[in-house]
Amino acid sequence: MRFLHTADWHIGKSLNGFDLLDDQQAVFEQIEGIAKKKAVDAVVIAGDLYDRSIPSEAAVRQLNAELAQLNLTDHFPVLAISGNHDSATRLGTGANWFAQTGLYLNTRLDSAFEPVTIGDTEFFLLPFFGIQAVRNHFGDDSIRDVNTAMARIVAAMQERFTPGKHHVLVAHFFAAGSQRTADSETLIEVGGLSAVATTTLAPFDYVALGHLHNRNALHDDRVRYSGSPMKFSVSEADQEKGVWIVDTDPFKAEWVPLAPAHDIHRLTGSFADLVANREQHPRDDFYDIELTDHERIPDVLNKLREHYPKIVSLHRTHAAKQVDPDHARARRKQSPIDLLADFYQQTMGIDLTATQRKWASDALSAVNDEEEE
Amino acid sequence: MRFLHTADWHIGKSLNGFDLLDDQQAVFEQIEGIAKKKAVDAVVIAGDLYDRSIPSEAAVRQLNAELAQLNLTDHFPVLAISGNHDSATRLGTGANWFAQTGLYLNTRLDSAFEPVTIGDTEFFLLPFFGIQAVRNHFGDDSIRDVNTAMARIVAAMQERFTPGKHHVLVAHFFAAGSQRTADSETLIEVGGLSAVATTTLAPFDYVALGHLHNRNALHDDRVRYSGSPMKFSVSEADQEKGVWIVDTDPFKAEWVPLAPAHDIHRLTGSFADLVANREQHPRDDFYDIELTDHERIPDVLNKLREHYPKIVSLHRTHAAKQVDPDHARARRKQSPIDLLADFYQQTMGIDLTATQRKWASDALSAVNDEEEE
Repeated sequence: MRFLHTADWHIGKSLNGFDLLDDQQAVFEQIEGIAKKKAVDAVVIAGDLYDRSIPSEAAVRQLNAELAQLNLTDHFPVLAISGNHDSATRLGTGANWFAQTGLYLNTRLDSAFEPVTIGDTEFFLLPFFGIQAVRNHFGDDSIRDVNTAMARIVAAMQERFTPGKHHVLVAHFFAAGSQRTADSETLIEVGGLSAVATTTLAPFDYVALGHLHNRNALHDDRVRYSGSPMKFSVSEADQEKGVWIVDTDPFKAEWVPLAPAHDIHRLTGSFADLVANREQHPRDDFYDIELTDHERIPDVLNKLREHYPKIVSLHRTHAAKQVDPDHARARRKQSPIDLLADFYQQTMGIDLTATQRKWASDALSAVNDEEEE
Repeated sequence: MRFLHTADWHIGKSLNGFDLLDDQQAVFEQIEGIAKKKAVDAVVIAGDLYDRSIPSEAAVRQLNAELAQLNLTDHFPVLAISGNHDSATRLGTGANWFAQTGLYLNTRLDSAFEPVTIGDTEFFLLPFFGIQAVRNHFGDDSIRDVNTAMARIVAAMQERFTPGKHHVLVAHFFAAGSQRTADSETLIEVGGLSAVATTTLAPFDYVALGHLHNRNALHDDRVRYSGSPMKFSVSEADQEKGVWIVDTDPFKAEWVPLAPAHDIHRLTGSFADLVANREQHPRDDFYDIELTDHERIPDVLNKLREHYPKIVSLHRTHAAKQVDPDHARARRKQSPIDLLADFYQQTMGIDLTATQRKWASDALSAVNDEEEE
């Protein structure tokens, strides 16, 4: 049994206002091509198919067409779950019908314990879940953290294991050992311990995870993130994106990279240098730019966009003095008005005037009075 | 061939703030029961399955479950289209898979010309459409009104007619002869003539229409509205709701009424009488109340809701003097301040004081000044 493991498609996501649907379609076509070339027996999508609980009509149209392409045209079995970005109910529309052609889309915790068997492997499709749903499922309010919850879930799944089969878990959560780096991820809502320990997942031959966008967030032979198929934030600029091709017998996981239609780059330099070197950088890629100029250049973003139309963020090396850490610690004990005066000085390079200080002080008093009422 | 014709389910609609999902589920169960009892060969739903383009998750869950019940559990073929209240794209999610079990859900004009054949009958599923979509489909910008558009559509469908079969059109529009009465209907967006003439529809053995909520909006043996399965506004209070059971050979259309879980009633009376007679009226039904009292009763709505919790509207017979039409015409020439003074007098029964008049005048001047800036 061989399957392709991908996750976190986030169809409909935009990058600082730039629509990514075409780029997402391009990367989908690469995934489809890899699935065909590697002759996989199934495609696994481990959650966050959409970027939002109410995706745009264009996003709905695109994901519908992509799933139809994989499942109805190419005849791949598809194993998918909802992630924290998806609305389980909305994404689950039609799921009752999909299974007939081998599109297994599970968005309900209660349905996660009935495995889908393809070839020599039983797949358990566990959607993103909240602790309360686990309490409800097991009728046990003592479940307080995600590790306890997962231990219960894994034990219940293990009871269903057919001996002699391989067992794969498809899931969407934050697993231990991983590092949260990308600003495109939201905090998982769990009490107490917030990460699932990979040891909890030991009964499975493979765990196909979604949630973190960096496949290197976790290093475990049998528990892997595929990461997102393309870069969704500047913090992902240096990550290689791709998919896993997993063989169950003998076990093997091969990384196959994906090429972005438009890459994200970090550039640092003076305005003059950036303009002079524009030919070195693909015009339609995305750029995060750090300007090293000391003097202020009026309307600099628009001027740079003449050469780099898709600038997603712009910083200045010399925009404001760096706050030194000792100073920052001292600030914690300051009164609100002193904090404000300090912030103003740091940002503007000059002190508050007496009049400004009085206005600010009056405003702070008024706010305090309101809060005490 | 026998089928059930219903339309305008508007799942997720609320009635002046009162959630109707439970009532809608109850009426759905009656429809399902009728389909079983009459042993129909198919269920036709002629558009407006949802009330909004982005229905709530609860509405999505309910319609998904209802369609699964009819199609997957009861094994009825279902023939459905999108109406003007539905998002074609969102409602169409999963449609590619649905047809495999005989759930034919068409939300695309381009797919309307390929009939679905069940028994002796070819069904053409025409979703709600805008004129521009018809122009695009035929590549003909000269199509200017809905009648021309429908003539083209019907002609194209006729070319696909298999001789010897019966031909049924399922559609969602305003057909000629109908009367727009319900305030729960929005105006159909068409240029020029806004209604389709029933003569245009003559090639069909039966046209199962949705859009108008009153089955009596049109009287034509072969072109019928089923109306909505329940009352969705006070203006529908006196309508009988139900479904058509249509036999194709020999042709016969039988009306089967549906009983609302909670009916809508119009009541007229004094506060004292309404309170005294409360036992005569089911407590959990919906009420439109006209109060005949002359004097103003403080907080009357809340007082009445102790006895009639689901009041959807409240009027007073003697709230304001009737505006006589001659007076209304004269008002068109009045200045804003005079109009306001007039309105105040009509509503409150007394004149503006000099101070009030000055305030109003100043406010109007300020607004005018802003508009001229």
